[in-house]
Amino acid sequence: MYLDSFKKIVLNYRAVFFDAFGVLKNSSGIIPNIQNTFDYLKKNKIDFYVLTNDASRSPMLLAEFYQNNGIKDISIDKIISSGMLAREYLRHKVKNGRVAYLGTPNSAVYLEAMDLITIPISKLDLQHHKIDEIKVLVLLDDEGFDWEKDLNKTVNLLRRTNVPVIVANTDKTYPVSEDEVAIAIGSIAELLENIVGKTFIHFGKPDAQMFNFAFQHITRENNYQKEEVLMVGDTLRTDILGGNKFGIDTALVLSGNTIPDQAEFYIKTTGIVPDYICESITT
Amino acid sequence: MYLDSFKKIVLNYRAVFFDAFGVLKNSSGIIPNIQNTFDYLKKNKIDFYVLTNDASRSPMLLAEFYQNNGIKDISIDKIISSGMLAREYLRHKVKNGRVAYLGTPNSAVYLEAMDLITIPISKLDLQHHKIDEIKVLVLLDDEGFDWEKDLNKTVNLLRRTNVPVIVANTDKTYPVSEDEVAIAIGSIAELLENIVGKTFIHFGKPDAQMFNFAFQHITRENNYQKEEVLMVGDTLRTDILGGNKFGIDTALVLSGNTIPDQAEFYIKTTGIVPDYICESITT
Amino acid sequence: MYLDSFKKIVLNYRAVFFDAFGVLKNSSGIIPNIQNTFDYLKKNKIDFYVLTNDASRSPMLLAEFYQNNGIKDISIDKIISSGMLAREYLRHKVKNGRVAYLGTPNSAVYLEAMDLITIPISKLDLQHHKIDEIKVLVLLDDEGFDWEKDLNKTVNLLRRTNVPVIVANTDKTYPVSEDEVAIAIGSIAELLENIVGKTFIHFGKPDAQMFNFAFQHITRENNYQKEEVLMVGDTLRTDILGGNKFGIDTALVLSGNTIPDQAEFYIKTTGIVPDYICESITT
Amino acid sequence: MYLDSFKKIVLNYRAVFFDAFGVLKNSSGIIPNIQNTFDYLKKNKIDFYVLTNDASRSPMLLAEFYQNNGIKDISIDKIISSGMLAREYLRHKVKNGRVAYLGTPNSAVYLEAMDLITIPISKLDLQHHKIDEIKVLVLLDDEGFDWEKDLNKTVNLLRRTNVPVIVANTDKTYPVSEDEVAIAIGSIAELLENIVGKTFIHFGKPDAQMFNFAFQHITRENNYQKEEVLMVGDTLRTDILGGNKFGIDTALVLSGNTIPDQAEFYIKTTGIVPDYICESITT
Repeated sequence: MYLDSFKKIVLNYRAVFFDAFGVLKNSSGIIPNIQNTFDYLKKNKIDFYVLTNDASRSPMLLAEFYQNNGIKDISIDKIISSGMLAREYLRHKVKNGRVAYLGTPNSAVYLEAMDLITIPISKLDLQHHKIDEIKVLVLLDDEGFDWEKDLNKTVNLLRRTNVPVIVANTDKTYPVSEDEVAIAIGSIAELLENIVGKTFIHFGKPDAQMFNFAFQHITRENNYQKEEVLMVGDTLRTDILGGNKFGIDTALVLSGNTIPDQAEFYIKTTGIVPDYICESITT
Repeated sequence: MYLDSFKKIVLNYRAVFFDAFGVLKNSSGIIPNIQNTFDYLKKNKIDFYVLTNDASRSPMLLAEFYQNNGIKDISIDKIISSGMLAREYLRHKVKNGRVAYLGTPNSAVYLEAMDLITIPISKLDLQHHKIDEIKVLVLLDDEGFDWEKDLNKTVNLLRRTNVPVIVANTDKTYPVSEDEVAIAIGSIAELLENIVGKTFIHFGKPDAQMFNFAFQHITRENNYQKEEVLMVGDTLRTDILGGNKFGIDTALVLSGNTIPDQAEFYIKTTGIVPDYICESITT
Repeated sequence: MYLDSFKKIVLNYRAVFFDAFGVLKNSSGIIPNIQNTFDYLKKNKIDFYVLTNDASRSPMLLAEFYQNNGIKDISIDKIISSGMLAREYLRHKVKNGRVAYLGTPNSAVYLEAMDLITIPISKLDLQHHKIDEIKVLVLLDDEGFDWEKDLNKTVNLLRRTNVPVIVANTDKTYPVSEDEVAIAIGSIAELLENIVGKTFIHFGKPDAQMFNFAFQHITRENNYQKEEVLMVGDTLRTDILGGNKFGIDTALVLSGNTIPDQAEFYIKTTGIVPDYICESITT
Repeated sequence: MYLDSFKKIVLNYRAVFFDAFGVLKNSSGIIPNIQNTFDYLKKNKIDFYVLTNDASRSPMLLAEFYQNNGIKDISIDKIISSGMLAREYLRHKVKNGRVAYLGTPNSAVYLEAMDLITIPISKLDLQHHKIDEIKVLVLLDDEGFDWEKDLNKTVNLLRRTNVPVIVANTDKTYPVSEDEVAIAIGSIAELLENIVGKTFIHFGKPDAQMFNFAFQHITRENNYQKEEVLMVGDTLRTDILGGNKFGIDTALVLSGNTIPDQAEFYIKTTGIVPDYICESITT
């Protein structure tokens, strides 16, 4: 398998979309030496954004992690998260009423910034609350609730009322240590969808809405062509598929989800072909 | 929609397979007046068995419920449960070693009767236990463990070791009150299967193995033909589909899952057509 | 079920996206009296576009149908088709080489306008052609090829070469008479995807890329807000789901796919809730 | 990867179930030297049956192939095909009326032996025939009809009448030369199921009914225990999964579908673990 040098190929582009997990950070923290890459981008006047399937906290808190780890280039305005799309949905489609949610208080920040009244599923009482006041259910994070009690409550809520369900992160799992993962809210959403038989609204890569949102964001200031933007990610089914479909070039990095040994095999069996394969963004 | 009289049609058969939930009992207890039906069967020399997707407790405990509620005809030898198929699997394919499981101690009784050493997932320590000693994982019941902690542990166990996973009940939900359901172990199995990408082994209706097991059971003593057996259930996708496929006649009753108003619509859209439709087994 | 008057609700918007089949036309031709609606839109200065899952012919040919049927308002620049998205993909991601396709010569017009060399699967010889020169496969239309011969050839092509596969219309069926449908290329795509196990790239409603393409199109000239645009369609899973997810208001019409009797039931079971329900766009 | 000697392990069993394609034959004909294996089985008094997902012709014609190729041991009574299960279904559940089918005249032999009137879809006229007389649709073979015309006709038939649909072979593809495959009727069944939204009745490995039918067949004469029977196949998802679930031991051979290089990888990712891996049945 031929490996491209990231620093060489990136010179063909004016802007880069970076996936976060497996590209910029992993379960041990920031991937070593990426500051060097951000200096290189700045020197070469290449713009960048972080495109992350994450609704567990606000862009501010997501940016804080990079800031606290010495990567000063990644500021709040560089972060584009799937949670932001959920917020956009609410802004356009839910003008008032109550929003029920599964997630932590940190994830609910998204919703509370708006004029909506939020209520965690854990505090919802199906017998006594006015269920009809709930206008939408948002799935934000796998933490912050009792899975057995609150998922059962969610199933019964969705049997009694017909509100849209927003899934703010489509990932199935996320890494928690070098060899362990945790079940993400995207998998929990599939469990619920499968049980109640309804179609939820999912936000996050590979969906085109995520890429479009990011592209509109970056083209507000600069008039980039799609040919001038590169998507860089470690996962074929989200980063590479989504980037390809959106019509931008794609680079798979082997610093995360996709193990070097298996990259070629997965590319062949899935039919999801990146334009480049790089060891990491530091090469 | 034309409704058949159960007591009339059953005279065409020498044996009946009854589904349990929605046919013999519901969330309030025994369905009223079914004792009368069992007297009628006895009078007419029609044999019967209860075919239930249930691995939460042993046939003995399942039978006890009927006994305690005055239905003396339903004794332990009349119960055929999906849990019994899981036990059969272990008997044939797992001769020794440890069996990990998700479920209550009541459900694990199935496994402990054998010469296998059982360990609930909740007591498994991925760091210190000898993972290699585990020969099979059995999903028995949705209760008896901490969903968040133990499902995450199960995902990581299945990433580290390649053992068969047995699902002892394929139901998605079960009723807990007149208008509420609970998520069943079948749904949890799908969640895990979806995350780890492996193919589990599922036991329970509509699978042919369940019907075959029951049919072999009843024909040990009497040489019934398939034409002489009637499957009676309240759910098209399990009871009626499974019975039809197995080659026996089927009767849908409207005392459970399938609401009278919607029966015709569901039969038309699913293409799963019962031979008869009856209000309940007491008509 | 409360029915809204289309002419009343449309006054709340500055632009409308119309689905074509079931809204503007059906298998008998143009839906009667819609000219009146287009006059009404013009009088009220409400802009409109036709958003159609169709790659069987060019926007020019699609517009010609309306022109020939007396609806002069629907000109070529009002048509936004899923085929146009496939063309966009090729423009950005496939600069040269051969494009293989399934479809009629009329559907291939999309591709031939570009600098690409096209070859229908029917003329491809797996033994003698240079398979490596094929850079992409595009599924355009269910007509124009021998299903048995050419679908088998396509499966073997995709086993030998790893190129992206573009599906230019995600619809499963389309109506051919009052009570008959035909299998659409979207279903054929699923058949192939299922066999070769690869992930194809699908364009068309409900995908966000279709709505985004249309929205960018209309906002080139006028700076509409999402709140000012209404999606009107006859199908919950494409028109209404896609519109809702994109963040615009949606109206279900009962002049096509969704039968009045079943509208409420389908809305309840799918959880796809339109903002309005109208008999047709002429009410 | 450790390879077992087939001739060594088979001595632990009293009967063997052989898959046909990839085990006994391939696209070039009989796999060389298997007569030697059948002599060995006879010498060691080990019984055998051929379990094949095939409804394209009768057991008689299937046996003829082996007879004509010099393997005299494989006579008609040794063949157990998925087509035989479809016939069983009809025998039990469809006593009279017309049976519509997709397939060749050779495949329809199954049905015509019974007292049913058969009609190929190609000869069915939806406008003039009495559709109500059709009691069941059977999918037998991918050949013998015009795919475009007759699959569209089938979709419209299933929209107009609610009859059971029997799929007599669940395979997705079958090999036609060393490097080419053809789409099998199992894939066509999925296409139709997906379009009309109905649940078909599928027969063939890995379904338990196939194994049970074979097991009852062999135990008519000899009282074998499940522990005494070995399933031998080249495909994890049909032969090995089905055998494991049925509770018999399984051996994967590398002479067909599963390429030696990828066997270990597929076993790990699917979680379908054979008890043995052998190069072929001649080792």
